[in-house]
Amino acid sequence: MRILGIDPGLRVTGFGVLDQQGQQLSYVTSGCIKSGEGLLPARLKVLFDSIVQIVQQVRPDVAVVEKVFVNVNPQSTLLLGQARGAAISALVSQNITVAEYTALQVKQSVVGNGHAAKEQVQEMVKRLLSLPASPQADAADALAAAICHAHAGHLGRLSTQGFRVRGGRLV
Amino acid sequence: MRILGIDPGLRVTGFGVLDQQGQQLSYVTSGCIKSGEGLLPARLKVLFDSIVQIVQQVRPDVAVVEKVFVNVNPQSTLLLGQARGAAISALVSQNITVAEYTALQVKQSVVGNGHAAKEQVQEMVKRLLSLPASPQADAADALAAAICHAHAGHLGRLSTQGFRVRGGRLV
Repeated sequence: MRILGIDPGLRVTGFGVLDQQGQQLSYVTSGCIKSGEGLLPARLKVLFDSIVQIVQQVRPDVAVVEKVFVNVNPQSTLLLGQARGAAISALVSQNITVAEYTALQVKQSVVGNGHAAKEQVQEMVKRLLSLPASPQADAADALAAAICHAHAGHLGRLSTQGFRVRGGRLV
Repeated sequence: MRILGIDPGLRVTGFGVLDQQGQQLSYVTSGCIKSGEGLLPARLKVLFDSIVQIVQQVRPDVAVVEKVFVNVNPQSTLLLGQARGAAISALVSQNITVAEYTALQVKQSVVGNGHAAKEQVQEMVKRLLSLPASPQADAADALAAAICHAHAGHLGRLSTQGFRVRGGRLV
């Protein structure tokens, strides 16, 4: 199963792709989408088009989008929501199923601590995917979301909005 | 010029289409998109697909999306942002130029009072477009946004994020 992780942001959106075969995870690609300095519709178009292009190139079986924080600044929350809406639209426009996890669930799954620091996430992503170096922070968060979904998929321990869990199994 | 107005919301999104010839505005169509009760990605897909379908059917020259309120509830702000992001993504995915106005600008342009009540907007939309009855509130807001853009287009009096105004002219 090929999993595409997305860590949405209006300025920078991280993405990361991995393949899962049984318990084996292998790194495919990762990177960042920078939406530039234009007006909002133009920036959302960059984000939307980039994700459509990534989907068409890597052909994932499922996508995972991290749930974003509600920022203390309502205007930032609105902007982040719009970026997340554009990212999810790009995925569903390509008929990709979207699963959602909170940052807490992702960190719990990858580091074993829901309140782990960014550097710990980067380090664990590097180890779990046997990478020669740590990925950039946004790409690491996207890969971490993909890893979280891989773990949830065969352990079925995480309750998410994208899946219902009953009796320890995905239903 | 054919103008598509959108009043985005996660539960209900209003849309309205009008044709502008000189100072003459004529009603084309309007209605509401209901995104259902599913999970967020499924609801955003309904919204995205519906707007793409509307664009393909009515072929507007430009779209206008009302700027949304920052809600007192941050979670609602985030949800609304995601709906707005999906709506704008649908428009830009079809290469439609998107202009943005605040509710205050729209009401000022349509009613002459930036703090007009919903009923006043509905009544003025009915009069300005010579409709036999008032449109539903969300559709009226979408038509009002389209009317605002029609007024701004030939008067050039409104400063918007979608256009720059200098010396009373759009530049």
